[in-house]
Amino acid sequence: MNSVKVGLLGLGTVGGGVINLLSRNGDEISRRAGREIEVVHAAARHLDRPRTCSTEGIKLTSDPFEVVDDPEIEIIVELIGGVDKARDLTLRALDNGKHVVTANKALIAQHGNEVFAHARDAGVTVAFEAAVAGGIPIIKAIREGLVGNRIEWLAGIINGTANFILSEMYYEGREFAEVLAEAQRLGYAEADPTFDVEGVDPAHKLTILASIAFGIPLQYDKVHVEGIGHVSREDVEYAQELGYRIKHLGIARRNENGIGLRVHPTLLPERQLLANVDGVMNAVMVKGDALGPTLYYGPGAGAEPTASAVVADLVDVVREFSLEPENRVPYLAFHSHALGDDPILPMDEVDTAYYLRLMASDQPGVLADVTRIVGDCGISIEAIIQKQPAPGAEEVPVILLTHRVKEWQMNQACERIQALDSVKGHLTRFRVENLE
Amino acid sequence: MNSVKVGLLGLGTVGGGVINLLSRNGDEISRRAGREIEVVHAAARHLDRPRTCSTEGIKLTSDPFEVVDDPEIEIIVELIGGVDKARDLTLRALDNGKHVVTANKALIAQHGNEVFAHARDAGVTVAFEAAVAGGIPIIKAIREGLVGNRIEWLAGIINGTANFILSEMYYEGREFAEVLAEAQRLGYAEADPTFDVEGVDPAHKLTILASIAFGIPLQYDKVHVEGIGHVSREDVEYAQELGYRIKHLGIARRNENGIGLRVHPTLLPERQLLANVDGVMNAVMVKGDALGPTLYYGPGAGAEPTASAVVADLVDVVREFSLEPENRVPYLAFHSHALGDDPILPMDEVDTAYYLRLMASDQPGVLADVTRIVGDCGISIEAIIQKQPAPGAEEVPVILLTHRVKEWQMNQACERIQALDSVKGHLTRFRVENLE
Repeated sequence: MNSVKVGLLGLGTVGGGVINLLSRNGDEISRRAGREIEVVHAAARHLDRPRTCSTEGIKLTSDPFEVVDDPEIEIIVELIGGVDKARDLTLRALDNGKHVVTANKALIAQHGNEVFAHARDAGVTVAFEAAVAGGIPIIKAIREGLVGNRIEWLAGIINGTANFILSEMYYEGREFAEVLAEAQRLGYAEADPTFDVEGVDPAHKLTILASIAFGIPLQYDKVHVEGIGHVSREDVEYAQELGYRIKHLGIARRNENGIGLRVHPTLLPERQLLANVDGVMNAVMVKGDALGPTLYYGPGAGAEPTASAVVADLVDVVREFSLEPENRVPYLAFHSHALGDDPILPMDEVDTAYYLRLMASDQPGVLADVTRIVGDCGISIEAIIQKQPAPGAEEVPVILLTHRVKEWQMNQACERIQALDSVKGHLTRFRVENLE
Repeated sequence: MNSVKVGLLGLGTVGGGVINLLSRNGDEISRRAGREIEVVHAAARHLDRPRTCSTEGIKLTSDPFEVVDDPEIEIIVELIGGVDKARDLTLRALDNGKHVVTANKALIAQHGNEVFAHARDAGVTVAFEAAVAGGIPIIKAIREGLVGNRIEWLAGIINGTANFILSEMYYEGREFAEVLAEAQRLGYAEADPTFDVEGVDPAHKLTILASIAFGIPLQYDKVHVEGIGHVSREDVEYAQELGYRIKHLGIARRNENGIGLRVHPTLLPERQLLANVDGVMNAVMVKGDALGPTLYYGPGAGAEPTASAVVADLVDVVREFSLEPENRVPYLAFHSHALGDDPILPMDEVDTAYYLRLMASDQPGVLADVTRIVGDCGISIEAIIQKQPAPGAEEVPVILLTHRVKEWQMNQACERIQALDSVKGHLTRFRVENLE
């Protein structure tokens, strides 16, 4: 049978990884796929750059639209990143009747609904396994492996840089700023860390995961996002004393009123598997009503892990070439006419447990005041601890762990606690999840 | 579109789970699959038994061949277990041109090559996600998600009963026999524990995993199998002191000479995720050359988790109805004409690290004798520890951890150590793996 002709947009790290992988494992891949898959046309911004891969036999251009318009190409692999140009190229490829494989989480999270509409009109596939958690086949697991389940929640460590920083803070007792600087030096973190440590990147991924889990349109602008910049070594240590670890999680949970979508630092019981995912690794837990809790773990980034997901998508697309669109796996797991309309909850209506730390003057009555306020707000306390003051300090740290409450209740309580004369400086609060 | 008509063989726990799941989540499932899936004919040994599911609207029979021969049925779900009758029914269903979904690991591990030959001749699918690790989509992950990778090894906790027993021994300091008796009382373990604790069940599953990972025919009779009956509380504690946990693993690893296939108790470094999979849960780690290490975790048994895998297979089969067989996912991940012929290594040629415990008389020179023998056999020692004798005991436990060696080297060393006058009773040895 003829080989499948692929056009590649972007010859950077991941693009090079895809070419290398198709070449190195070409024999195993075609023994599985039944066809050879071949990159025949590729676009790179600078044609004279040194490459991580051989481009022998590949037609090269600096104009990606040339690849997208090449009539010989059956599948476009979009790896240029960014949003606007990637969107233009993807839509043009789809309108040209080509299938698209993309690793672009921002594109799918922000423009996926439009992209899928074009794909549907053209009767072609858009595959995006590489957009979430690198090479871990998490999109496949949720869309296909859990197809019989009503998904209750999912929660994931889906940014390796943030997890690397939190792991170093935990194991080495280092401060956030110091580890971030090192991660930048090592190339784990971008010079502009906004995407990673402030949560934009995991919010993109969570948007995608939530849509395929619950069958809702992509709604990136409704994700509540908090970064890890305010996690201190102190809180990492207090959490540890209480039997918890702090992880940067993306969480999507359905209750009777709607779906909560949020990315924030979270305390997890230290015996849970997800709490023990260290360094740059990613992991996603998914709870289905029939299956129960499952976890998927692996490298969330890097040239070869990402290429692994791209190649898996390519093989899936090739297998589905001759399938009528209505028998293909739907883009968002549910057929487009059968997507749901569960509302995304405002953050006030999301319920979680809390870790609260305040600095209080070392005088009688503070604990009584705090517990009275918390009780007045309808919040049950699981534990309250007053630490010894640091040598020479006038204030003592007081730490509370609460049961699950609505966010608005906690806001109310915090406002009143903050107003107490005996409470100094700002309250620190983190959400706590028990994922079982 | 018409609903898909399914025939069910076996109305026990899992069969009831499948009917309940298709009914409870029928709406979500057809919004994903695009078709309704309906059990219309079912066979049970005793028609008058109380059921965990409603059988309203389902034609019932005590003769499973009636279901297999029903011309209205498009897919047979085989859940009767056992081997001989399941084989007859499965082959007849395939020869009748029906697709088959099965949870029967013994059938696939022992007769899979024959079953797939019949399916190929008839141009139909055999799906068996439920046969390994319950509802965890591990077959899908390896066959499809990792399709671009050359798999280097996989290792899994694939029997929940054995893992429950080892977890209790670790956390509660209990003895094997005592926990086994409790597991039998709780219904986690069969009255005849052979399958679970002696390793037959995980060997079936490992056979299947190895074939889809490496693209080799099923070769159940070549798996080296050891149970967990000889794991003592003492060794669990010594392992813990050394920073390890003992798990019952199925391991398939490729080296330059062939593939090692083995099920045995194994020491794992306690910081590794797989070492922290507790209770009845299952988990499989898979190392691909591009992707690196990944892990898949979840419930490995039970009515609903198994039903979750059966329903996922049903939807996959339905989607592939109109696909030419050569574009379907191959039974063993690789197309049948492209399966490999890597030999299965004799156990002597498998290499692992070792934990060795011996009881020696408390006299000078024993350590020197032991280390000399081990060195003579070409084995490097990572650690050697001589414990204090128990109060009143005349012998002291000596524990060695070695680097990786071939099994025959270790056999040689053990024989010579065992022959020392100063060594009393039998050596205890366990293999050690560092899965990274």
